[in-house]
Amino acid sequence: MEGMVDHLAFERNNSQFDVDEMKIVWAGSRHAFEVSDKMARLVASDPAFRKDDRVVLDRKALFKNTLRKAAYAWKRIIELRLSEEEAAMLRSFVDQPAFTDLHWGMFVPAIKGQGTEEQQKKWLPLAHKMQIIGCYAQTELGHGSNVQGLETTATFDPRTDEFVIHSPTLTSSKWWPGGLGKVSTHAVVYARLITDGQDHGVHGFIVQLRSLDDHLPLPGITVGDIGMKFGNGAYNSMDNGMLRFDHVRIPRNQMLMRVSQVTREGKYVQSSVPRQLVYGTMVYVRQTIVSDASVALSRAVCIATRYSAVRRQFGSKEGGLETQVIDYKTQQARLFPLLASAYAFRFVGEWLKWLYMDVMKRLQASDFSTLPEAHACTAGLKSLTTSATADGIEECRKLCGGHGYLCSSGLPELFAVYIPTCTYEGDNTVLLLQVARHLIKTISQLGSRNKPVGTTSYIGRVEQLMQYRSDVQKVEDWLKPNAVLGAFEARAAKKVVACAQNLSKFTNPEEDEHLNNHSWLGFQELSVDLVEAAVAHCQLIVVSKFIEKLQQDIPGKGVKQQLELLCSIYALFLLHKHLGDFLATGCITPKQGSLANELLRSLYSQVRPNAIALVDAFNYTDHYLGSVLGRYDGDVYPKLYEEAWKDPLNDSVVPDGFQEYIRPMLKQQLRNARL
Amino acid sequence: MEGMVDHLAFERNNSQFDVDEMKIVWAGSRHAFEVSDKMARLVASDPAFRKDDRVVLDRKALFKNTLRKAAYAWKRIIELRLSEEEAAMLRSFVDQPAFTDLHWGMFVPAIKGQGTEEQQKKWLPLAHKMQIIGCYAQTELGHGSNVQGLETTATFDPRTDEFVIHSPTLTSSKWWPGGLGKVSTHAVVYARLITDGQDHGVHGFIVQLRSLDDHLPLPGITVGDIGMKFGNGAYNSMDNGMLRFDHVRIPRNQMLMRVSQVTREGKYVQSSVPRQLVYGTMVYVRQTIVSDASVALSRAVCIATRYSAVRRQFGSKEGGLETQVIDYKTQQARLFPLLASAYAFRFVGEWLKWLYMDVMKRLQASDFSTLPEAHACTAGLKSLTTSATADGIEECRKLCGGHGYLCSSGLPELFAVYIPTCTYEGDNTVLLLQVARHLIKTISQLGSRNKPVGTTSYIGRVEQLMQYRSDVQKVEDWLKPNAVLGAFEARAAKKVVACAQNLSKFTNPEEDEHLNNHSWLGFQELSVDLVEAAVAHCQLIVVSKFIEKLQQDIPGKGVKQQLELLCSIYALFLLHKHLGDFLATGCITPKQGSLANELLRSLYSQVRPNAIALVDAFNYTDHYLGSVLGRYDGDVYPKLYEEAWKDPLNDSVVPDGFQEYIRPMLKQQLRNARL
Repeated sequence: MEGMVDHLAFERNNSQFDVDEMKIVWAGSRHAFEVSDKMARLVASDPAFRKDDRVVLDRKALFKNTLRKAAYAWKRIIELRLSEEEAAMLRSFVDQPAFTDLHWGMFVPAIKGQGTEEQQKKWLPLAHKMQIIGCYAQTELGHGSNVQGLETTATFDPRTDEFVIHSPTLTSSKWWPGGLGKVSTHAVVYARLITDGQDHGVHGFIVQLRSLDDHLPLPGITVGDIGMKFGNGAYNSMDNGMLRFDHVRIPRNQMLMRVSQVTREGKYVQSSVPRQLVYGTMVYVRQTIVSDASVALSRAVCIATRYSAVRRQFGSKEGGLETQVIDYKTQQARLFPLLASAYAFRFVGEWLKWLYMDVMKRLQASDFSTLPEAHACTAGLKSLTTSATADGIEECRKLCGGHGYLCSSGLPELFAVYIPTCTYEGDNTVLLLQVARHLIKTISQLGSRNKPVGTTSYIGRVEQLMQYRSDVQKVEDWLKPNAVLGAFEARAAKKVVACAQNLSKFTNPEEDEHLNNHSWLGFQELSVDLVEAAVAHCQLIVVSKFIEKLQQDIPGKGVKQQLELLCSIYALFLLHKHLGDFLATGCITPKQGSLANELLRSLYSQVRPNAIALVDAFNYTDHYLGSVLGRYDGDVYPKLYEEAWKDPLNDSVVPDGFQEYIRPMLKQQLRNARL
Repeated sequence: MEGMVDHLAFERNNSQFDVDEMKIVWAGSRHAFEVSDKMARLVASDPAFRKDDRVVLDRKALFKNTLRKAAYAWKRIIELRLSEEEAAMLRSFVDQPAFTDLHWGMFVPAIKGQGTEEQQKKWLPLAHKMQIIGCYAQTELGHGSNVQGLETTATFDPRTDEFVIHSPTLTSSKWWPGGLGKVSTHAVVYARLITDGQDHGVHGFIVQLRSLDDHLPLPGITVGDIGMKFGNGAYNSMDNGMLRFDHVRIPRNQMLMRVSQVTREGKYVQSSVPRQLVYGTMVYVRQTIVSDASVALSRAVCIATRYSAVRRQFGSKEGGLETQVIDYKTQQARLFPLLASAYAFRFVGEWLKWLYMDVMKRLQASDFSTLPEAHACTAGLKSLTTSATADGIEECRKLCGGHGYLCSSGLPELFAVYIPTCTYEGDNTVLLLQVARHLIKTISQLGSRNKPVGTTSYIGRVEQLMQYRSDVQKVEDWLKPNAVLGAFEARAAKKVVACAQNLSKFTNPEEDEHLNNHSWLGFQELSVDLVEAAVAHCQLIVVSKFIEKLQQDIPGKGVKQQLELLCSIYALFLLHKHLGDFLATGCITPKQGSLANELLRSLYSQVRPNAIALVDAFNYTDHYLGSVLGRYDGDVYPKLYEEAWKDPLNDSVVPDGFQEYIRPMLKQQLRNARL
C-alpha cells in the first residue's frame, strides 16, 4: 500500500494464508471487493476528503466542512456517473456523518416503502436528484422507543382536504432526526392520524419544512439543531434537529398511503397491501446495521492489532528490544476474540442479506409464516452485534494504552460515532425483550401447527436438548462444530424453558396460549432473565452462521483454516465469558469448561502469526482508518510526533492567556488582576 | 436545593431513611461534609466558574478559559485564606482538568517524598506560592508502563558538577505529562542516571523548562502540546505535553537525593532512608484514585437515577402516564448495582486512607512487613474500581437512552475525563498481574515465617477454604454476611491455588521459593487466569470492607438498613456476574446461584423507593453534576430545549455554507460550483 517503510513487513511475511483471497471473503464477493477497493482509493486520494483536521474544528466550521464534503461527493458521483452501489460506497468512505445519510438511508426508503405508486412517482425523482432533501422525523423529546406514544397530531380537515400537523406539547417536539436541524427541506413526519375526532394511531406524512428558495422555515415551523453530542468531530458534523409544528397544513395526498388511506370524505380505510410489508423495511435497515457493526469493529481491531505489533513494553533482555505487546497473553485474550467477532459479525450480516431477500420474496407471495422469526432474528442480531461493537471499540482503545486516548489514534472518534447505534432503530434492551417474547411464544406453541422455523428450529428439539450433556473429553473435542453447537443450543433452550416455566407461575393456566395480563406482570418481573435468554439465543445464531459459512467451499491457501480458528475462538470465548450459564444449566461440566479454556489459549497462539494479515484483509486505506496507531506501515512514533505539532495550541510557544493569567500568578500579582 | 419546582418531590417524600445522616456517612465525617458542602456552594454560586459553555469552545479558547479559572481559583483561595483541605476541595469542584492538578498532585508530592530536607526547604515554598509551576515528566513517547525502560539520560559531568539531561531518541521524548505542554516552568524529570559510564537506573531531577520572565523554553528544550484527546471539553483543557532535551545542564543538587545521592566526585551512594518510602507515595496516590472513582461513578449514577425517575416509556393505560423507566426490572438490574458500587468504592476508599496511615506509621518505625500486601492491595483496588467506574459511567449514559448522548447530559464529558484513569498510575491489567504475583508468592510462602497479613490473611486458611461448600438453603440465607464472605473467600482462594498448581508445572521444583525463569514463562502463559484470580481477590476486599463498615455503629433513621441492602446488592450482583467462577470452583451450587439471583431481584424492589434519596445523599450541586438530565428538580425537558438553542449552529436560521453548498445542490448547479 502507501509509503516506503514497512515496520510490519516481518509480520506480513510470516502469515500463513493468502491475504488477497481473504479480502474477497471479507468483501463478500470479487465484485464487492472491487467496487469497495475502487471507491476507497478514490476518496483516499482526493485531498478534498481530508479528515485529519476534523477534531479541531469548532461546531460551525465542522458543519460547514460537512456541507462542502457532501456537495463535493455528490458532484463527483454525478461527474463519474457512479452506480447506486458505488455512490453508497463512496459516501461511506467519506466517513463523516451527514444529512445525506438520512436522505438516502431513511427518507427515500420511507417513501419507497410506504408511499403509493403515485406518491413515489411524484417524490422519488425529486429526491433522487436532490432537488429536495429529506429526513425522517419520528422520535420526540419525550418519546423514543415507544413509537405508539408519539404526541404529534395530524388532524384531517375535510373542509380544505388537508391535514393539520401540530405539536401539542413541548415533549411532542421532534427531537434527534439527523439532517433536520439545518439542511432538510422536507421530512417524513410521524404523527397520530386523527379523523373526525378519532385517533387512528401513528402514520407517516411528507411535510415541507423550508422554502426551496431562501431555505427559511415555512410558517408555523420552528426548527433548529439540538446541540453538541459526544466526542470531537464525530456526530457533531450532523445537524440532529428539533422541530415544532404550529398548525401546519399539508395536502391530503402527502400522507403516505400505501397501507392505509384517508379518503376525500375523511374516511380511514386499509388498502389491500399487507401491513407486514413495513416489517420488511425494518429487516432491511437492521441488516445493514449488523453489516456496519462488522465494519466499525474491524476498523478498531485493525488499529489495535497493528499498534500491538508495533508497541513494545517490558521483557527486554540486556538492552535488547522489549516484547511486542501483541505477544502478551493478556493482550491476545482481549484482542483476538474481537478479531474473531469482527469476522463473525461479517458473516452473520451476509446471511441476513439472504434472509431479507427470502422474506421479501415470501411477502410478495403473501407468505407471512417466517416473518415473526425473521423479525425477532434481525432485532436480536442488531442488539447483539451493536452492543458488542460499541464495547469492542472501547476495548481496542484500552488495548492501545495511553496513546489510544489521543484523537490521532482514531479510536475516540470511532467510538463516539458508533455508540448511538445501540440506541437508534430500537434500543438494544427493548429489542432483546422482543426476541424473548418471540422465544416464549415459540415454546408455548410447540405441538401446535406453528412449528419453529429458521433460527428457532432447534426449539423443536427442546425435549432432547433438555437432556443434553456435552460429551467433550479432551481439549481437541471442542474443535468439533457439533460439540460447540450442541452446547450453545442446549444452553439457549434450557434458559428459554426456565423462563417459560417461571412465567407460567404468573400465568392463568386457562389462557396461557397468548400473553395475557398475568404474564405481562411475569414478563416484567422476569425481564432480566428473559434478556439473558435472548442473548444466549442470539449468540447461538452468530455461532451457527459462522459454522455454516465454513461448510461452504472457500478457496485460497490457508484461508479456511484461519476462519476455522476464528470461529472456534469466537465460540469458546463466549463459552468462557458465560461459563455460569453453561455450568448452571448442566450443559457442560467444570472440567469441560477448563478444557475449552485450555484450547482457547492454544488457538490464540495459532492466530498470533496471522494477526496482521487478518486485519490487512479488511483492506482499509490509511485515510479510512484515520489512525496514526493503525498505519499500514507501522511508522507510528514519528507520525504521532508530527501530528501533535499541528494542534492549534502549538501555534505559539507562549500560550494565549499567559500575560493575563499565568504571569500574574508567578509574579504574585493576582490580587490586582482582573480575571 | 435550587429552583422552585420539584418533579421528584414525590420520590423524595417516599424515601425511608434520613438523607441528611446519609450525607455525613457518604462524606466520611460531619467535618468532611461541611467543608465539601461549603466549597461546592462557593463554586456553584460564582459565575466565573460556569462550565456549560465548555463543550463548544475550540481548543485555544478552552485552554485560555482553563488558565483563567485556575488563576481565579487561586486568587479566591488566597483571598478567603482557605485551608489546604478547603483549597483542594474547591479545585475539585471547579471540575476542569488543569495544570494545577499536576502541580499540587504530583510535583509537590514528588519533592516532598523524594527531596532531601534541604531541597524541600528550597523548592517547596516556591511551589506553595506558585512562584514556580511544576509537572511530573515520567512517561515517554515509546515508554509507558515500563518505567525501567525509560531512555532519557542524566549524565553526571564531574568537571562542572552538573547533570546533562538528554533525549537520545525520538521515542525518549517525554510524552503525556499534564501541565507540561504550555504552562509548567519546572518539571520533575525521570531519567537514567549515568555516572562514570555506569547506568544506575531511573531517578528524578528538578529541571527548569521555561524562563520565569518571558515563559520561553530555555535553551536545549523543545516543548509543546501533544494535541487533542478524547471528547469535547474534557481533558482538552489540559496541556498534556511533549518534551525533548538537547544536552540540558542542571546543577548536581537538582537530583532528588533523599534515597540515593551522587557526590561531588561522581560517586553513587545510597542514603540511610529506606527505598520503600517510595511505595508509601504510591499507596497514597492510588488511595486518592479509589476515592475519586467513587466520586465519578456516583455522579454518573446520580444523573442516570434521577433521569430514570423522570423519564417515562411504554406501559401507559388509556392515555395515562407511561411507566417511569426506573420501574423496569431491566433498568434496575443495570442501575442499582452501580449505585451499590459507588457506595462500596466509597467505603473501601475510606478504609484505604486508614491503610495509608498505618503503612506510614510502620515505615517510620522501619517495619516493612505489611508493605507488599498494602502495595498489592492498593494496586488491585485502583485497577478494580477505575475499570468498573469507566464502564459504569458509559452504562449510565446508555441507561439515559438517546439523550445521554447529548453533551448537555454531562455524561459524555464525565466519561471522556474519567477513562485515562484506567491507564495512568499503572495500567489496570499490569496492576492486576502485580496483585497476582503477590498472591502466588503468599501461597508459596505458606508454612514459612511470612504469614499472610491484612487482606491476604484468608489465604492462611486455604486448606479449610479448599473444602468450602456454601450452606445456603433458602433465599434469605444470602443476606448473612458470612454466607457472602465465605463464598467470596473460597472462590478467590481456589482460583489462586489453581493458578499456583498450574504454575508449578512450569517451575523447577528445586528453586520454587522465588519466581525464577521457568515460572516467568509460566506466568506469561497463565497470565489470563492470574488476572482473573486477582480480580476475585480484589472483589473480596471490596465486599469485606463494605461488610466491616456495617459492623460499625451508623446513626440515622434507616441509614444502616439502606447500606445493608446496597452491600448485598453489590455482592450478589458480582456473584451473578461471575457465576462461572463460583460454580466451577464448587463454592456454590446452581441452585444456590439461582437463590442469590432471586434475592437480588427482591433487593432491587426494596431499594427502588429510596433510589432518589440515595443519590441525593451524594450532595452534588447542579453545577458540579453539569447535567440537564440529572437536575435536582427533575425539570429536564424544558431545560434540554433551552440548552439546545444555545448551540452556535442556531445563531442563524440558515446555516453558514447554504449558499455555497446546499443551494447549488438543490438548484442542480453543482457542476459549476467551486467546492
